[in-house]
Amino acid sequence: MEISITKTNKPKQKPDENNLGFGKIFTDHMFLMNYTTEKGWHDPRIVPYAPIEFSLATMTFHYGQSIFEGLKAYRTQDGDVQLFRPKNNMARLNNSAKRLCIPTIDEDFAVDAIKKLVDVDRDWVPSNPGTSLYIRPFIFGTDEFLGVHPSDSYIFAIICSPSGSYYPEGINPVKIYVEDKYVRAVKGGVGFAKTEANYAVSLKAQDEAEQKGYSQVLWLDGKTGEYIEEVGAMNVFFVIDGEVITPSAEGSILEGITRLSTIELLRAKGYKVTERQLKIAELTEAYDAGKLDEAFGTGTAAVISPMGELCYKGKNMIINNNEIGKISQLVYDQLTGIQYGELPDEFNWVQKV
Amino acid sequence: MEISITKTNKPKQKPDENNLGFGKIFTDHMFLMNYTTEKGWHDPRIVPYAPIEFSLATMTFHYGQSIFEGLKAYRTQDGDVQLFRPKNNMARLNNSAKRLCIPTIDEDFAVDAIKKLVDVDRDWVPSNPGTSLYIRPFIFGTDEFLGVHPSDSYIFAIICSPSGSYYPEGINPVKIYVEDKYVRAVKGGVGFAKTEANYAVSLKAQDEAEQKGYSQVLWLDGKTGEYIEEVGAMNVFFVIDGEVITPSAEGSILEGITRLSTIELLRAKGYKVTERQLKIAELTEAYDAGKLDEAFGTGTAAVISPMGELCYKGKNMIINNNEIGKISQLVYDQLTGIQYGELPDEFNWVQKV
Repeated sequence: MEISITKTNKPKQKPDENNLGFGKIFTDHMFLMNYTTEKGWHDPRIVPYAPIEFSLATMTFHYGQSIFEGLKAYRTQDGDVQLFRPKNNMARLNNSAKRLCIPTIDEDFAVDAIKKLVDVDRDWVPSNPGTSLYIRPFIFGTDEFLGVHPSDSYIFAIICSPSGSYYPEGINPVKIYVEDKYVRAVKGGVGFAKTEANYAVSLKAQDEAEQKGYSQVLWLDGKTGEYIEEVGAMNVFFVIDGEVITPSAEGSILEGITRLSTIELLRAKGYKVTERQLKIAELTEAYDAGKLDEAFGTGTAAVISPMGELCYKGKNMIINNNEIGKISQLVYDQLTGIQYGELPDEFNWVQKV
Repeated sequence: MEISITKTNKPKQKPDENNLGFGKIFTDHMFLMNYTTEKGWHDPRIVPYAPIEFSLATMTFHYGQSIFEGLKAYRTQDGDVQLFRPKNNMARLNNSAKRLCIPTIDEDFAVDAIKKLVDVDRDWVPSNPGTSLYIRPFIFGTDEFLGVHPSDSYIFAIICSPSGSYYPEGINPVKIYVEDKYVRAVKGGVGFAKTEANYAVSLKAQDEAEQKGYSQVLWLDGKTGEYIEEVGAMNVFFVIDGEVITPSAEGSILEGITRLSTIELLRAKGYKVTERQLKIAELTEAYDAGKLDEAFGTGTAAVISPMGELCYKGKNMIINNNEIGKISQLVYDQLTGIQYGELPDEFNWVQKV
């Protein structure tokens, strides 16, 4: 399929790169493609970024049959623009699609669509240190029908938003509240999919944690409340007695691409990395025994976010003296180095636009 | 707040009452009201039913911060139009709102908005037996922002759809598949709220059940997989050895208004009705002992839907000879009698428009 391109005749002024924030400013163009049962995916097009008319009966307003992805385009010092493992994002989009009864897309075609869109909006990729162009591919049901049933029609859209550095003042460890009342996901549900439900469910716990002075919550499993799952926007890693441990992906956590890259990178560097079930009790015991060396989250937004403090049922655990640990720093430096083209791409993770 | 009314100058042709179906045809008008942090809920208005423009960055396309309700307006034989317990729907909407970090509404005002809208579209309330006007109030976040955070702005909308009789050929018991792989909700989640997440999660199981020849799935609890919860679109009741049992509402099932009315009605008629945890094992044992007299679902769409067959892990249970039972029929006759004004409204459940 050929992607048609209609360029805007009213390009917007580029924003101040020192005040980009996240997810509030959008570029001049967007990618759209439609699906109908009769025609399949069709009419891929890059068009000026603009609002679209929807009937309020449209399925997406009612039943959340919707999936998304998030990735970034990085500006190198040479002025090139590059993506980090975009095929993985499109493969995960398809995994999410299957769980939500959404028709899958051709992954290579979708990566190509991302590249074409970023190319058209190339000047929107910022170049200040730590900045990037956040890319949001998403698919949602568009039937104008109030029955609870998979939609027969969909839109696949990609929008882009220049975003600021996550750490403008250096990496700050965050305070995390271990959630013991609310549940994000349960085995048999949609926890592994990047879909609306998981985020809607998380808002209340996040809100209450913020009011208590924490930046995010660490979720425990929905069945027993004993096993560590993830932080809403990040996967989690713990270094216990020199071993790097991350919860195994068994259907209720998102399989992050930064998570995967962290595992692969650390193994290549000779670290022992174990994916397994990890009880919160094991973590507190390790802490009490002085063996909890580091704790960090991984995700597209922050890459690495060290956890400086964990609060579980009133027990406050200060990790690594509330400073970023050696392994956390290594992963951060290596991954961002590859993403921004400052280190050799030895794993073949980067694709130029 | 005064609700402004702008009537359409292009009224649509009314549909054939014999082919209404469900949720596909919409009336001439809709109710809209906006919320912003600064102004609170404001600008309530009834306007011609028409599409609305949305930026694709609008929160509702990404994070499912959205809640809804469903109720009906019924045409009596005298030509009056009446609602069934609308205040209960608006109270539940507020319960859902609190869980999803959505600002609550004034319940009396919202009931009044429903009445005004139905009054403006009064001619759209069909009069064929079993038909009704389905009313969909819903609230969704409208911030144009990709951060995972409660929206600062919302739309409260009400749209209406004339709908056909659920049982045009008499009440048919349905085949139900007891789901033992997928999970709808778990305690600590949003199962009790009428929100997108619960419906998105259900699509896959529903789809697979249909392919096996069942009309709906019966959900078991997410923690143990042992306790009966609900059918996706209905609460469930079982008559075991003369006792009417329905799963207690403990946070993971929707507290249906037809469920509540069924409990209240049967108790007033002298039946023993128990809300308690009910194991699927207890059900199969009762079946084997010949004590499972009836099984039925309750919901706004069907009012009562007898379950004629239940399949659990390959065990097929034919209930009451695949015919509607005495209690199921009683509840159906009484509730529809009250809704359509054919029986006295002894519980004060009906409100005239």
